[in-house]
Amino acid sequence: KRAREYGIHIGVLQPGANNAITDVQGVRIGHTTLVQGKQIRTGVTAILPHEGNVFQQKVPAAVYVGNGFGKLAGSTQVQELGHLETPIILTNTLGVGTAMNAVVGYTLQLPGNEQVQSVNAVVGETNDGYLNDIRGRYVTESHVLEAIRQAKTGPVAEGNVGAGTGTVCFGFKGGIGTASRKLPASLGGYTIGVLVQSNFGGVLQVNGVPVGEELRQFSFSKHVLESADGSCMMVVATDAPVDARNLERIAKRALMGLAKTGGIASNGSGDYVIAFSTHEGLRIPYTSAEKTQTVTLLRNDELSPLFMATIEATEEAIINSLFKAETMEGREQHVTEALPLNSVLKIMKKHHAIKR
Amino acid sequence: KRAREYGIHIGVLQPGANNAITDVQGVRIGHTTLVQGKQIRTGVTAILPHEGNVFQQKVPAAVYVGNGFGKLAGSTQVQELGHLETPIILTNTLGVGTAMNAVVGYTLQLPGNEQVQSVNAVVGETNDGYLNDIRGRYVTESHVLEAIRQAKTGPVAEGNVGAGTGTVCFGFKGGIGTASRKLPASLGGYTIGVLVQSNFGGVLQVNGVPVGEELRQFSFSKHVLESADGSCMMVVATDAPVDARNLERIAKRALMGLAKTGGIASNGSGDYVIAFSTHEGLRIPYTSAEKTQTVTLLRNDELSPLFMATIEATEEAIINSLFKAETMEGREQHVTEALPLNSVLKIMKKHHAIKR
Amino acid sequence: KRAREYGIHIGVLQPGANNAITDVQGVRIGHTTLVQGKQIRTGVTAILPHEGNVFQQKVPAAVYVGNGFGKLAGSTQVQELGHLETPIILTNTLGVGTAMNAVVGYTLQLPGNEQVQSVNAVVGETNDGYLNDIRGRYVTESHVLEAIRQAKTGPVAEGNVGAGTGTVCFGFKGGIGTASRKLPASLGGYTIGVLVQSNFGGVLQVNGVPVGEELRQFSFSKHVLESADGSCMMVVATDAPVDARNLERIAKRALMGLAKTGGIASNGSGDYVIAFSTHEGLRIPYTSAEKTQTVTLLRNDELSPLFMATIEATEEAIINSLFKAETMEGREQHVTEALPLNSVLKIMKKHHAIKR
Amino acid sequence: KRAREYGIHIGVLQPGANNAITDVQGVRIGHTTLVQGKQIRTGVTAILPHEGNVFQQKVPAAVYVGNGFGKLAGSTQVQELGHLETPIILTNTLGVGTAMNAVVGYTLQLPGNEQVQSVNAVVGETNDGYLNDIRGRYVTESHVLEAIRQAKTGPVAEGNVGAGTGTVCFGFKGGIGTASRKLPASLGGYTIGVLVQSNFGGVLQVNGVPVGEELRQFSFSKHVLESADGSCMMVVATDAPVDARNLERIAKRALMGLAKTGGIASNGSGDYVIAFSTHEGLRIPYTSAEKTQTVTLLRNDELSPLFMATIEATEEAIINSLFKAETMEGREQHVTEALPLNSVLKIMKKHHAIKR
Repeated sequence: KRAREYGIHIGVLQPGANNAITDVQGVRIGHTTLVQGKQIRTGVTAILPHEGNVFQQKVPAAVYVGNGFGKLAGSTQVQELGHLETPIILTNTLGVGTAMNAVVGYTLQLPGNEQVQSVNAVVGETNDGYLNDIRGRYVTESHVLEAIRQAKTGPVAEGNVGAGTGTVCFGFKGGIGTASRKLPASLGGYTIGVLVQSNFGGVLQVNGVPVGEELRQFSFSKHVLESADGSCMMVVATDAPVDARNLERIAKRALMGLAKTGGIASNGSGDYVIAFSTHEGLRIPYTSAEKTQTVTLLRNDELSPLFMATIEATEEAIINSLFKAETMEGREQHVTEALPLNSVLKIMKKHHAIKR
Repeated sequence: KRAREYGIHIGVLQPGANNAITDVQGVRIGHTTLVQGKQIRTGVTAILPHEGNVFQQKVPAAVYVGNGFGKLAGSTQVQELGHLETPIILTNTLGVGTAMNAVVGYTLQLPGNEQVQSVNAVVGETNDGYLNDIRGRYVTESHVLEAIRQAKTGPVAEGNVGAGTGTVCFGFKGGIGTASRKLPASLGGYTIGVLVQSNFGGVLQVNGVPVGEELRQFSFSKHVLESADGSCMMVVATDAPVDARNLERIAKRALMGLAKTGGIASNGSGDYVIAFSTHEGLRIPYTSAEKTQTVTLLRNDELSPLFMATIEATEEAIINSLFKAETMEGREQHVTEALPLNSVLKIMKKHHAIKR
Repeated sequence: KRAREYGIHIGVLQPGANNAITDVQGVRIGHTTLVQGKQIRTGVTAILPHEGNVFQQKVPAAVYVGNGFGKLAGSTQVQELGHLETPIILTNTLGVGTAMNAVVGYTLQLPGNEQVQSVNAVVGETNDGYLNDIRGRYVTESHVLEAIRQAKTGPVAEGNVGAGTGTVCFGFKGGIGTASRKLPASLGGYTIGVLVQSNFGGVLQVNGVPVGEELRQFSFSKHVLESADGSCMMVVATDAPVDARNLERIAKRALMGLAKTGGIASNGSGDYVIAFSTHEGLRIPYTSAEKTQTVTLLRNDELSPLFMATIEATEEAIINSLFKAETMEGREQHVTEALPLNSVLKIMKKHHAIKR
Repeated sequence: KRAREYGIHIGVLQPGANNAITDVQGVRIGHTTLVQGKQIRTGVTAILPHEGNVFQQKVPAAVYVGNGFGKLAGSTQVQELGHLETPIILTNTLGVGTAMNAVVGYTLQLPGNEQVQSVNAVVGETNDGYLNDIRGRYVTESHVLEAIRQAKTGPVAEGNVGAGTGTVCFGFKGGIGTASRKLPASLGGYTIGVLVQSNFGGVLQVNGVPVGEELRQFSFSKHVLESADGSCMMVVATDAPVDARNLERIAKRALMGLAKTGGIASNGSGDYVIAFSTHEGLRIPYTSAEKTQTVTLLRNDELSPLFMATIEATEEAIINSLFKAETMEGREQHVTEALPLNSVLKIMKKHHAIKR
């Protein structure tokens, strides 16, 4: 079960209907999960910002680099032009080139894109090489296309799925996690949805409770910091009418949510945030007879609730990735245990951190 | 008393001797506190990186802008050249020009600087206009020079002193706070010291415990977010041999410490981090007969413990600023209450967040 | 006379009516020129984006740091919030604090700003310490206010005026220069205006002609590079409807105009660009009953003509600053000669770089 | 012939022995040129920073984004960690994924890299879709590996080779170009080498002479700006002992060299610079028994000559790419003419811009 189902209520804002990135209208998620033999524990997750041709109807977007030990493709064009023109793909570190090829191919063949000669594929990754034979490079273009094809709205599978199949987080099995926040009408009523691929370290806190320390009779050790390497890809979607500049500010807040789980953005971590707005009035047509575009945007002053929502949803998405992941054995008999939920819940209760 | 004296142990690393930024050898702190009549509640805090002429012996430094709703002076030159050449001054928002003038005057008159024609004064600020008649602009160059002159090593006054005299944090009285971490010898034995001027909002957490929610029978409201505005200046000192690039990475982690206190870096917040290294082998002479300089620097791989230390020390410095601040009445009978420590400690105990 | 009056036509686009930043409707320029005794050769230049209360009606703006050896105040808030809320002030390096104080005072006392507690003064500088007794710090708040008060539309005084009074450029007397470009209607008809405070070095080229080399029987020498230090402040105004993100892109192009004059953005140079849009539909009210703002913005695809216009206008503004500056003697009998126009024009003719 | 062979001497510094990026000791260049049938006009260029295993012996490096309408892979890790760990590959826009895969494969199989699980492939591109059937995606991993394998020191093939096979610059045939500068001993004696893949527009100037205007009876037109789109990849190598921070500053100057050719970094241009130092004392070992590394670095004050050298070499490399390119016919009978050298040289002579 997810954290909230156990009574763990992170933050003060309310989640959306599915407590998932798909609570942002039109966002679709697809996973391809690769668990084959003893060596292959990897996969692909696709995030589609809307149901149309994203290249023809681009969405405002931003990228924030928390710690750049990673291979995110497509970041500079998003930063320069302020928009996203493809699905976002998450996969493993050595699969980025293949995923780019798949996204390029997918985009070129979409009806309406017959003359397109330039595609900015946005592909993120974390390194699942502890459980997965990453050097074998088993992710194919078909796997990527399959994730795109399967993408759907509604509840999102979490844990050992898609790009989270082989990831490790705080020394436990990590994976895909998601959460959302819906602001009250007085604050605009907008939704923020976050999806993460968790693969990083630090000293785990669950809703502020020092679970990492308690579980491990923790005392500081070199080991902890070594296991701190890894990465976290974070994708933030919103239906709020915000432009690229303010999306970048929203993206920065996702790192603050990561911090609250005990992550430290270690040297070896590739911690990236991609944020986009699905607001229909902000779609940027690839071509237009008009030289200008009229948009209605939130004033800077209205951003703080969205910042808070992003922090909360990111924190909860990471915790969900841990709660939903299951123990996995991978290459060379490497085993990564799931977070021991029984023990965790006891600790949470002891700390009065579970709501009835 | 400070948080740790109550048994609140933030993080897993150990503090230095004074649990203060001054645990970094050579760093000195000076305060000028202005509490006059009913209107003036402001001041100046000076951070001196070493005891010599800082202009002649610059220190490697970096600036990270968490949220740039602020008036920090000197940031671009620090970012371009990678060094700091003056004391760092903190004061109120409308006092930055005066503080720059003071720092320029101070630097020009130092023995050895007779020919100097260019000075990059680094001056940060937060807005104390709720308690202080900030429009009155009562900070003078003398006040700034006095803070520099008084700067000393050893324990650091916290709470309603210096640049923290009139600040407000999470709706309670904020101020100056400090903390430090000393890495074990196996991790290099380096010290990280942090000093903050806390003046921001969010939903207060003390070592993970949702104190803000419990104290206020909290439920989400517009009010909370309005009070979220404000700012946090953070100064990080270290004796580790790290260059400007890695100091910038360290600086970014201070925001993660802020996040753990419940701060959200709201739209109206000026959240800045200035980080510098006092390592003697890294001093950059203003003039040199040599065209090159030989330095011994930590490898990237060794940075993670410093990141963790920065996060922990920043979190604790902010909490200390709240624990040490006292209720203050200022202009127009505005009163900001100190954090109610008795209640807080009860909450902390309930949550098993106090060590024996 | 200005370069164009001699038949030197830089670029392929046409200038506006005054070939000045004031060709952008509503932009006003004011100078305070300080030439006193043998020591004081400095001043202040004010750029006002529109005739109203800029704090109440902010304009979209961006800052680009070409080389950050400088003390520009206010950059981080412009970058974060995407707007400018005060006049821009240019002065000498050690006068930034005083100019900030003046701008703060000016803003606080404007009708309508009675409750304002936070002002982001944008103040740039270059170092006129060769001709001016910069350590004497003769710029006062009154000088700054006078420049603001005198600001007017129409032709702009150039050369040894305002903040350009004591500056040196390519080893010759520099100063204030300005130029503009008006796009043809087919490209939108927008105007770009640039004003520079030129104080930098390199190997002078005038409209591509190697004037620096020819004038000095130039051969490479250390001397050239030493004289390369200095700085260039560039202000770009436009009436095009562009937001902060695209203003930053425009700002970056000003450095390309500087490059075409032979500037190299040397280590010691503080090369900054501030760009803003005066488009009335983009004014950002300080307070608003609305949570959103509707704006009509140029699409990215339409930016290239504005980029070209910025490059051309910046190049010509710098050349104008040299053409209009006159020989000046300053402190310690330092003399900086004006560009020898007769010789320059001969060289230009020889190179067929003068239009009939 | 190259520009200098015609007596066109750009700048005031002297070139190295081959006037090529390979004048920086150890740098090797390899091309795979694909000209097949009527449709395929593309290729791959590989830049190897030294002869060893670059992953095991990384080099200090930086990336500067002039205009980010491009797909450069690997930028964020270079920026975060300050080093380059693979050959740099240039190819066409839709070939980046394939080139990444090739670089990953190449790196994984190098002796000594048997345990490597993470590779940051740096791959740049420009869009050769006018002459090349870019949608056909004809670049294969073998082509990339072939370019790496063929890489050699000494003179570098220019024009229609490698990644420059199908590019267009200022409306003429562009391609690969290179140049270098060797500083006099008094300025350190260091070498700067630049290689470009030219594919952009603007109004061509050759050593300051308005060749674009003269050749085309130029008057401003929409057409020019449309043809301004495109991109320029620039690679800067140096043997100077400079760290990542100063390499970033060097990288920024390459854009100034581009500006001097008349480029405008148009909206649709992907203008990127990758700079690295080959200085042996700065190699960063992948693993090390030491926690620190001792390096001898140039002081900031010594950077200006390197900036000037970078500007000059970039300008000349772009001009060389045009001088050495030849008329090419490609897909759909598209023909791009070579720069008409006879006419250009006449214009140059008229403008006294050719040295005897």
